Amino acid sequence: MATKKNIRINFPASEKVYIRGEMNRIQVGVRRVTLSDTVFIDKNGKKSVKKNNPVILYDTTGPYSDSKIELTTSTGIPRIKEEWNIRRKDQIRINNKLIAKQGKNITQMFYAKRRIITPEMEYVAIRENQQVEELGLKSHITPDFVRKEIAAGRAVIPSNINHPEAEPMIIGKNFLVKVATRICYEQAALVPEKEMEKIAWFCKWGNDLFLENEEDAQHTDTREFILRHSPIPYASTPIFDALKQVGTIDNLTWKVFREVIVNQAEQGVDCFCIHAGLLKKHSKHTDVRLTGITDPAGLLLKEWMKITNKENFLYTHFTDICEILKQYDITLVLSSALRSASIYDSNDAAQFAELRVLGEVAKRAKEHFIQTIVEGPGHTPLNKIQEGIKEQQYICQQIPFFSSTPVSTDIAPGQEYISSAIGAAQIAWQGVSLIADQTSYSDKERIKDKLIAHKIAAHSADIAKGHPGSQVRDNALSKARFDGRKKDVCNLSVDPAKTAKFI
Amino acid sequence: MATKKNIRINFPASEKVYIRGEMNRIQVGVRRVTLSDTVFIDKNGKKSVKKNNPVILYDTTGPYSDSKIELTTSTGIPRIKEEWNIRRKDQIRINNKLIAKQGKNITQMFYAKRRIITPEMEYVAIRENQQVEELGLKSHITPDFVRKEIAAGRAVIPSNINHPEAEPMIIGKNFLVKVATRICYEQAALVPEKEMEKIAWFCKWGNDLFLENEEDAQHTDTREFILRHSPIPYASTPIFDALKQVGTIDNLTWKVFREVIVNQAEQGVDCFCIHAGLLKKHSKHTDVRLTGITDPAGLLLKEWMKITNKENFLYTHFTDICEILKQYDITLVLSSALRSASIYDSNDAAQFAELRVLGEVAKRAKEHFIQTIVEGPGHTPLNKIQEGIKEQQYICQQIPFFSSTPVSTDIAPGQEYISSAIGAAQIAWQGVSLIADQTSYSDKERIKDKLIAHKIAAHSADIAKGHPGSQVRDNALSKARFDGRKKDVCNLSVDPAKTAKFI
Repeated sequence: MATKKNIRINFPASEKVYIRGEMNRIQVGVRRVTLSDTVFIDKNGKKSVKKNNPVILYDTTGPYSDSKIELTTSTGIPRIKEEWNIRRKDQIRINNKLIAKQGKNITQMFYAKRRIITPEMEYVAIRENQQVEELGLKSHITPDFVRKEIAAGRAVIPSNINHPEAEPMIIGKNFLVKVATRICYEQAALVPEKEMEKIAWFCKWGNDLFLENEEDAQHTDTREFILRHSPIPYASTPIFDALKQVGTIDNLTWKVFREVIVNQAEQGVDCFCIHAGLLKKHSKHTDVRLTGITDPAGLLLKEWMKITNKENFLYTHFTDICEILKQYDITLVLSSALRSASIYDSNDAAQFAELRVLGEVAKRAKEHFIQTIVEGPGHTPLNKIQEGIKEQQYICQQIPFFSSTPVSTDIAPGQEYISSAIGAAQIAWQGVSLIADQTSYSDKERIKDKLIAHKIAAHSADIAKGHPGSQVRDNALSKARFDGRKKDVCNLSVDPAKTAKFI
Repeated sequence: MATKKNIRINFPASEKVYIRGEMNRIQVGVRRVTLSDTVFIDKNGKKSVKKNNPVILYDTTGPYSDSKIELTTSTGIPRIKEEWNIRRKDQIRINNKLIAKQGKNITQMFYAKRRIITPEMEYVAIRENQQVEELGLKSHITPDFVRKEIAAGRAVIPSNINHPEAEPMIIGKNFLVKVATRICYEQAALVPEKEMEKIAWFCKWGNDLFLENEEDAQHTDTREFILRHSPIPYASTPIFDALKQVGTIDNLTWKVFREVIVNQAEQGVDCFCIHAGLLKKHSKHTDVRLTGITDPAGLLLKEWMKITNKENFLYTHFTDICEILKQYDITLVLSSALRSASIYDSNDAAQFAELRVLGEVAKRAKEHFIQTIVEGPGHTPLNKIQEGIKEQQYICQQIPFFSSTPVSTDIAPGQEYISSAIGAAQIAWQGVSLIADQTSYSDKERIKDKLIAHKIAAHSADIAKGHPGSQVRDNALSKARFDGRKKDVCNLSVDPAKTAKFI
């Protein structure tokens, strides 16, 4: 079965090339864009040409852009990390699912603290550095720098050992800003071709992390299919799956939740979004808000606490959660139920009260060597971003921050991808490592618009932060524009086809 | 002749209302959005309702949204400022065109320095304040505050006495951030209906200032038509018109240029973009740039200086230019030929060398009481914005800054409205008063996308700067969203129809 047309990713003048590791048997896929020559004509009309170096771009397309790899809906994509896990000898396979051997800690953070540079760490070091290497320069982002950042808890590499298909990528403020996007399943029953097309579409436009939709939480088959065909990591919010299992909020128990996270862990979900920071005492803060709680998981937990008159079980069972997560190296995303849903509520008592609890549980997760991200602000006006980030960095000890829909104004719900991109660029520059627009769409063009807007925001922040080599692409494109090499301008742009229409 | 459908501007649940002045016989048009009630249901199922105040919005649509005014292509729109000019008695009408009486200075800055609060000043004070007044609060933006800002040269009200159709609006860092957009004429020959539709379209999406296209410079009839039908001010770059008159660059002279600006002044052009800062000595700085000079007027002047071996006549005849401008109260936009066309070139020696000359001529313009704006940076990474603005504020003594296409990265030429909006929000927050995306389009949807993106950026900056009442709309929309009043969410959003599709 040959690869279908809509599944293969092609960009003009682009070629998939691989950079080999020096310490480990790894190869990192990148996109190389070939440029035409600059032509000079001197006073006497004599023509001379000057070569322009190809530009190497960060590539999230995995096997979807490698014409040598056949892509079918039946086999799954290559499991590039499988061998790395086998070699480590600290995992066992039970019912065809990997889990840490009794008494072993297998997280990237654990390895990092033990001064072990894993293939994952070398992989991301190469991946973050391509443009610099191409220029013959040395970057400070070495495999050992990656290790140190992970050991310090300042960065994470989402890498559930049961998702060997995912290419390692790193989230942390000293690395390229990453973009997460909600994937909206095609329909209740799995349609493999459609889902595969969708994966390819998200990867084509640079998505770094899938976020699972609330509505899709119980579609185990589709999740399984996506994990087996996704070269990028996958994050879920397991409380939704648990709710679907029991039907009503009052039936929700720790036991059900536990089962759900074990199942999803075995499937290969890389990140769990856990709202462990919302406590009963926070309601006094939310009651005075303009927009209270709007986060769906937050609302659910608030309701559960009200019905049962118990404390949030994600908090009371936090140690139990850690015990499970570390057996698979699942990255913990400490979600914020109280992130502001309006700029009016930003940086308020509710937000910071929850943040302090998140800081406390994050510290406990660290004791288990669990890779952790904390969700930061939502809607925030530009002038309040720095204050919020500073507080977070202090409370959470520089743990990577995730910000979803950081819109800088509330007046554009129909064009939220723009207000969110404006806020995202600023917030990422100030230190947030992962940005997202939480709204989920099924329309392909809308997904693309949103992803591109956030990629532009992320790249603007990378440049402002001085990420090594991040400006190489800008400079090459500007030179092409000045030379009048229109094809090169298009080929280097985020969206070659659209650029060709407008320049 | 009744008003055509495509010309009348309607927004749902919106009404055009007028606020009367206290000091002058003026009325300022605003858009009032009516909201539905918030409905509460208590424990016993009893319903109660709470009224939500209407929200007053800044309105650039002029008579196009006033159903009481008939709009035709033959008569022009109401000349709201005509009476104000007549009353001042310092102007005379020659060949049906107004000009200052011999020896009189008639600029808003001159009046401001003489402690005269003009109708224009009271008009903008009301216009900038609507939401605050609605809340029953007092804002610091009083007519006298406006006067002081203009007297100090920190703000301008573009108001050619021959463009009485334009509603006064103010540009300055202590006021709402304004957005300028290029208008692309329909075709060489004037098609009144089409042009009028276009004016309405730009005004509908919040355009504050028209910028004339290079290609359209010689279409005097169309310019005349637009001026007679535009409720917003109009800016041109007269050097292009002059070039069209003479055909080739070597034929360009001060005499021709002088004729052109007198003609355009009599037509009613509110702002002249004059590239008086580019000197022969600057070529040594541009030669080492990645993207040299790309500004079309800059290239033209550079070529003229090379051919004639003379200094830029816009600089050598600067006093003569001032003598003309002040007779009509034309706002001087000191354009930057050397603003960076790539983030690589931002804040470089060329940019700052030209800026110093602009600072010098701006000072001379001030001596003539000419209202002046200085064009600031182009492509600039987020981390270099503050440095650039600081330098500008110092050199140009807080004269209002204009930034065109302040993209934060060069990799998105096909989606420049996004990279430009990201940079624009940041740069406006830091103190730039007028933002624009310089690319010109004829496609209606593209114009709208671009305008909306920049309006969102401007509004984000207004909030970050703490402009009085600017957050009222955000808060009302957030509350509507939280209440589930979807219609109100749509009606308060920048684009009701699009919002209805996506929420």
